[in-house]
Amino acid sequence: MQNNKKETLEKAVVREKKPASEGRSHHSRYEKIKLPQKAPSTPVKIAFLGGLNEVGKNMTLYEYNGDMFIVDCGLAFPDTEMFGVDFVIPDFTYVERNKDKIKGIIITHGHEDHIGGLAYLLKALKIPVYATRLTAGLIEGKLAEHKLDDGSVKMNVVKPGDHVKFGAFDVELIRVNHSIPDSVAFAIRSPAGLIIQTGDFKIDTTPIDGGMIDLARFAALGNEGVLCMLSDSTNAENPGFSQSESKVGESFESLFQKAGNKRLIIATFASNIHRVQQIINIAEKTGRKVVLSGRSLEHVVEVGSQLGYLNIPDGVLIGIDMIKKYTDDKLVIITTGSQGEPMSALSRMALSEHRKVEITPNDYVIISAKPIPGNEKTVYRVINELLKLGAEVIYEKMYEVHVSGHACQEELKLMLGLVKPKFFIPVHGEQKHLRRHASLAEGMGIPTKNIVISDNGYEVSITSESIAVSGTVPAGKVFVDGYGVGDVGSVVMRDRRHLGQDGLVIVTAVIDSASGEFISGPEVVSRGFVYVREAEKLINEIKECAADVMDSFSGTSDVGAVRNKIKDDISRLLYERTKRSPMVLPLIIEV
Amino acid sequence: MQNNKKETLEKAVVREKKPASEGRSHHSRYEKIKLPQKAPSTPVKIAFLGGLNEVGKNMTLYEYNGDMFIVDCGLAFPDTEMFGVDFVIPDFTYVERNKDKIKGIIITHGHEDHIGGLAYLLKALKIPVYATRLTAGLIEGKLAEHKLDDGSVKMNVVKPGDHVKFGAFDVELIRVNHSIPDSVAFAIRSPAGLIIQTGDFKIDTTPIDGGMIDLARFAALGNEGVLCMLSDSTNAENPGFSQSESKVGESFESLFQKAGNKRLIIATFASNIHRVQQIINIAEKTGRKVVLSGRSLEHVVEVGSQLGYLNIPDGVLIGIDMIKKYTDDKLVIITTGSQGEPMSALSRMALSEHRKVEITPNDYVIISAKPIPGNEKTVYRVINELLKLGAEVIYEKMYEVHVSGHACQEELKLMLGLVKPKFFIPVHGEQKHLRRHASLAEGMGIPTKNIVISDNGYEVSITSESIAVSGTVPAGKVFVDGYGVGDVGSVVMRDRRHLGQDGLVIVTAVIDSASGEFISGPEVVSRGFVYVREAEKLINEIKECAADVMDSFSGTSDVGAVRNKIKDDISRLLYERTKRSPMVLPLIIEV
Repeated sequence: MQNNKKETLEKAVVREKKPASEGRSHHSRYEKIKLPQKAPSTPVKIAFLGGLNEVGKNMTLYEYNGDMFIVDCGLAFPDTEMFGVDFVIPDFTYVERNKDKIKGIIITHGHEDHIGGLAYLLKALKIPVYATRLTAGLIEGKLAEHKLDDGSVKMNVVKPGDHVKFGAFDVELIRVNHSIPDSVAFAIRSPAGLIIQTGDFKIDTTPIDGGMIDLARFAALGNEGVLCMLSDSTNAENPGFSQSESKVGESFESLFQKAGNKRLIIATFASNIHRVQQIINIAEKTGRKVVLSGRSLEHVVEVGSQLGYLNIPDGVLIGIDMIKKYTDDKLVIITTGSQGEPMSALSRMALSEHRKVEITPNDYVIISAKPIPGNEKTVYRVINELLKLGAEVIYEKMYEVHVSGHACQEELKLMLGLVKPKFFIPVHGEQKHLRRHASLAEGMGIPTKNIVISDNGYEVSITSESIAVSGTVPAGKVFVDGYGVGDVGSVVMRDRRHLGQDGLVIVTAVIDSASGEFISGPEVVSRGFVYVREAEKLINEIKECAADVMDSFSGTSDVGAVRNKIKDDISRLLYERTKRSPMVLPLIIEV
Repeated sequence: MQNNKKETLEKAVVREKKPASEGRSHHSRYEKIKLPQKAPSTPVKIAFLGGLNEVGKNMTLYEYNGDMFIVDCGLAFPDTEMFGVDFVIPDFTYVERNKDKIKGIIITHGHEDHIGGLAYLLKALKIPVYATRLTAGLIEGKLAEHKLDDGSVKMNVVKPGDHVKFGAFDVELIRVNHSIPDSVAFAIRSPAGLIIQTGDFKIDTTPIDGGMIDLARFAALGNEGVLCMLSDSTNAENPGFSQSESKVGESFESLFQKAGNKRLIIATFASNIHRVQQIINIAEKTGRKVVLSGRSLEHVVEVGSQLGYLNIPDGVLIGIDMIKKYTDDKLVIITTGSQGEPMSALSRMALSEHRKVEITPNDYVIISAKPIPGNEKTVYRVINELLKLGAEVIYEKMYEVHVSGHACQEELKLMLGLVKPKFFIPVHGEQKHLRRHASLAEGMGIPTKNIVISDNGYEVSITSESIAVSGTVPAGKVFVDGYGVGDVGSVVMRDRRHLGQDGLVIVTAVIDSASGEFISGPEVVSRGFVYVREAEKLINEIKECAADVMDSFSGTSDVGAVRNKIKDDISRLLYERTKRSPMVLPLIIEV
């Protein structure tokens, strides 16, 4: 029976227009395991729509015997070569195709890479959502933004220890530590066996609030027997144990002292409620007022304090317009922009473009974050500009002003050691993270053949006896640009790259379609190519080149041929003269 | 007299069209020192054309009483927002204006950020060049590329201990350690006093070749009395002492063993001749043949071995076409691309686009470099792709496969302690590096008022009694794009950014200039905006919008007004519909 299913799936894959996998196909020793000829039972199938071979847009589908549910639906931030793209969400084709099977979606925690695609999914598919309280609060904000707060989406607030049924599946929530409160892992039961998906996690023995990760529950499940674990690989390259969030509080305590009479400005991730709480606590103790700058921060603080995740003593928080009434030594400004985001509050302060906060040498700035790979240059630019304004700036490398929310190697090994899964799938990370996590698992005694390094667009089938990549499903990157979802594809992106790199040369001419005679032109317009005033000679050469073509085609009825010839000749001319290849657009208008 | 000079300079500055400084103006406690009212002697003036508040395009001008000389003339690599730019060189306006005063240029070492702008300078200004042997060899390659090898440039090969006269200046060369052989510092004597410019340096007590940095000479000069030091700030954030290049050899020895029977592929900077030498040595010892892949690497190895900086035993080096004749365990491929550069040999291997080298699970790849800030993502992509092909990949974080060529904090302090300069100018680095280096100097007892954090476009005047920013000079970024030098300015760059982010919508129409009636159009062409086939409705709306404007202007003689109105109306329409702002180009052709 299973073989038939597999065939059906493979046929389905062949029918796909879009390539199933985002990456190039690749084979590794981890993927060579094949299903046994006679499968002993109905498998659980896990399809990955995001989060593998990338950091972000996490989305996983579970299926057993026709019942399906989804874990997370995140977004990813664009690479620099995704010109003009705001963010990237998963391709929902596979979800839409299976909409009748899908019983709901359950969310591990409230970070954008786990909830940022949800509103887009729910526009297409009205399925019930299950999330812990804070996560639900943050999702509701998104639904309101997307005008989905009309009751059409059923939001279910759940908590660690709860069980959620999705057809044949029973999903139990387990408390974990992470850089946002209310994060959970899932123990997923089906007749095929017990699967654990950790979500993003770390082990924090001294968390700020909410208690330590429920290691006892993971241990109990491990003793019960876990068929497969999917675990967070983000920090699989980092040896040792991540530091506790409390450590940051200790650093802040001493930095508040070092700051003396200066104004404190602390940049952090908006969603890191525990860090905001620690800053508020120390501010209260040292008699400073707390100011928030940055919309996302204000939103998270509002939701967090409404739901009881933030404890803000009366009178500590003041509006940003009030800062003039206080001397520098009585203020802490908490702000967004710790990744150097160009439009963020901190960037605007650094560039003297913030309307309320002017940086002076009496400012003591703490960047309480680490640059995410790819953001280094923008973060350093902000630091350099703040320093030029005379501010003191404290950033990683200098003090422990940030700790990661993801488990390092020793924590990952501890989790593997407690859960003792038979099969293992490292998730959430680039290839190098997944490989390293797989190596750790091998080092813990899990046989290589029991580990699958999967990819977006792969479906993995698991029975009590076997694990294997059993097929592919449509998956891909859908670009969100302004209101447009998916209307910016590879052709548009290629043109943007071309225009952005080399600019544009337009040649216009008007042709009498009856006689085939050119009655106007050629005229040349360029943008992003050369500074035209200084390139008069070159522009004239382009005109001459186009005029030569027009002469040779005089009386023609084949406007397409004129267009092609002008494009080719001018492209060649420009490459010879400038060693550049601007986009050449011949616009021949027929009248 | 000095005051008069200062005034003249300031007037000169006011006349400049270009802004003198690349950054925004900024003031810090380091710059508030003013010249005393009665200057006691003629100052040495140091003008910075590059290398401050940036990493790259190092270029410094020294002037005493009308005699000038230049130290280094480098290039910088473009930031991601410098769309399509190949590299950046300094603005030579100030040099050209003073061409009669300039006696020559002397080079610290052969890295691109110190020699990459030289050919462009020498095209404008035929001044004698002074450099050590390897540096001269590398420069000569560049002169040949730029057809400057016709004898018009006088190249003088000098060595540590030599003195070069530039008018009133006497420049002594001092050996330093760095990641390229033949690097030197300068002791610059003039009647105003002795100035030391370290160039890029580190302290390597066990270098591969060429001997340890001449600390004794720095110490002797320190005892003699040094007026001012300009010192390398690149690693001023890094505590401790940099590791010796020999350490990399030790790592390689053990990694060659770990590689077993696999083929070794080692990516490193082409110019790191010492590292190439170490690989060759171990390859010979372990019976492997060495293959070079990458043009710049082949060039450096050729120059290096011709000049005796590389010792290649007979028969060790084989051509890349020979690799088929050897089994994997008999090969080491040294390659460029350690920064993930898209067109480099290693990138092509990772993307299966290299014509001679196909990556297999029997490859053991070592990335012997650290990502330069900004290159992280491209480096990681190469690593991920190599891993997907099944190769084992060793990169920083895993073993000591790379050491820096720049002094860390303890080395910088050692240099400060030996040279004991009265005045100090940290150079080569972003603001954060310069500040940190200044702090180290303060910690060593140099008074804050004796330290100047300068900027590109600043001129610093130094007498035996004082140091101060005394004026500004024209300086800036000149973009090199293909054959074009400086023809891509801020307007072109702004257009490229706009086109690259949001694409382009062109509206064409033909108007009869006699009657003011439109006889054709509107037609719409777009590139990089939306995928047109899926946006038919939107394209029709654009046409209707343009047609409405044309109707309302029927019979007009003011084509400019039509153009503006079409542009405004369509821009507004598109923002409303898509929340995007493509470049809108109305082309109204008059016949």
